[in-house]
Amino acid sequence: MKKTLGVIGGMGPAATCDLMEKIISLTRAASDQEHIHMLADVNTAIPDRTAAILRGGPDPVPELTKSARRLVSAGADILLMPCNTAHYFYDDVARAVSVPVLHMPREAAAALKAAGVKKAGVLATDGTVRAGVYEKALVEAGIELLYPSPAMQAEVMRLIYDGVKGRSAPLESIPVGDILQDLRGQGAEKVVLACTELPIAFAELGLMEGCLDATRALAFAAVRAAGAETTAPDPW
Amino acid sequence: MKKTLGVIGGMGPAATCDLMEKIISLTRAASDQEHIHMLADVNTAIPDRTAAILRGGPDPVPELTKSARRLVSAGADILLMPCNTAHYFYDDVARAVSVPVLHMPREAAAALKAAGVKKAGVLATDGTVRAGVYEKALVEAGIELLYPSPAMQAEVMRLIYDGVKGRSAPLESIPVGDILQDLRGQGAEKVVLACTELPIAFAELGLMEGCLDATRALAFAAVRAAGAETTAPDPW
Repeated sequence: MKKTLGVIGGMGPAATCDLMEKIISLTRAASDQEHIHMLADVNTAIPDRTAAILRGGPDPVPELTKSARRLVSAGADILLMPCNTAHYFYDDVARAVSVPVLHMPREAAAALKAAGVKKAGVLATDGTVRAGVYEKALVEAGIELLYPSPAMQAEVMRLIYDGVKGRSAPLESIPVGDILQDLRGQGAEKVVLACTELPIAFAELGLMEGCLDATRALAFAAVRAAGAETTAPDPW
Repeated sequence: MKKTLGVIGGMGPAATCDLMEKIISLTRAASDQEHIHMLADVNTAIPDRTAAILRGGPDPVPELTKSARRLVSAGADILLMPCNTAHYFYDDVARAVSVPVLHMPREAAAALKAAGVKKAGVLATDGTVRAGVYEKALVEAGIELLYPSPAMQAEVMRLIYDGVKGRSAPLESIPVGDILQDLRGQGAEKVVLACTELPIAFAELGLMEGCLDATRALAFAAVRAAGAETTAPDPW
């Protein structure tokens, strides 16, 4: 009997669907009935995570835990948060429920370690960067973190907020090639897309080569945790 | 205050994500928080709908109503079923809950009528075709239905089951152009993609021109029913 996955979503809504699709495509199944039972809460009342961490914006924890409890009440056995920045609040969410909550940065770190990566570039929101959401997971896996220069980090934020969330800037107007070059110039062997909006943009731009999609790493771990077989041997 | 949408999903899982993405992209929103709250139940225990209608397979109604009630308990104000064939069981689902359940064939019929269509080709599962799921909605809207020839209908089933659900046949191996030609030869002005797996295949194949995506018609109606503004004036 496979377990039921619960997705604490809405951060953003498109990233929620992206995780769900990755879980579906990574599940070995020949019919609808062989797929994993999933419950999703696209909770758009969850306040902006970066604003809470950096600018004293409204605390996301009450809505995060409300979604977590709602999903467990509806039958979820394992929870997932398709938002890297939200992992700053991971302990609060994990404490609120009695079921396991998968940890996206740790799953990404495991995939990097398995691939023998020693230095990884991290592309994420200002909130994730400044709060050090990826620091602990990568350092524990023996991997050195590299971040973009301040100017390039501002472009990463523009890609996330204007390019994907708001769809107010064409993706092509953001110098994504320069961002990657900056990290590779610093010695990054691989680049982690550590914001769930980024793989959406990178896939559209055809720039996934050499990048680890943290959403896909989480999806891969979720399929295995649910007790299903994966369609690929690793999340790369 | 916008209403919460509840998605009775898993029929198939990819079609569930497709509906959710269409709702998200049709919602006018500049931030995560301006999107519609959605709950989804990717209930993979729902038995095959076509098998139930045509071959006495297990009845999908108990699992459909279980999902409907689960979503309403979790807070859904309006329910959606991203599976055209499942609309054969629409009355049973609608009776099981006290909230409105949107009706995909009726939404598709409304979009065809608004576009002045008098003769529409319908591409659907054998279950949807034989049970006449689209008949009533289109006839009430004053639209004549045209179905593919038996040989072409067999190819539609292969596209749905092997091409999309099972991913065991490459989409290019199915003569989709011939299917469309058959309907247009019979006088179809537009073609309704009346199985939620079909828009996924047609979009990949670049064949959406002249086709109404019933999933998109449902998404469009859902955004309006939830109280949000749409990003497009109609579902075409």
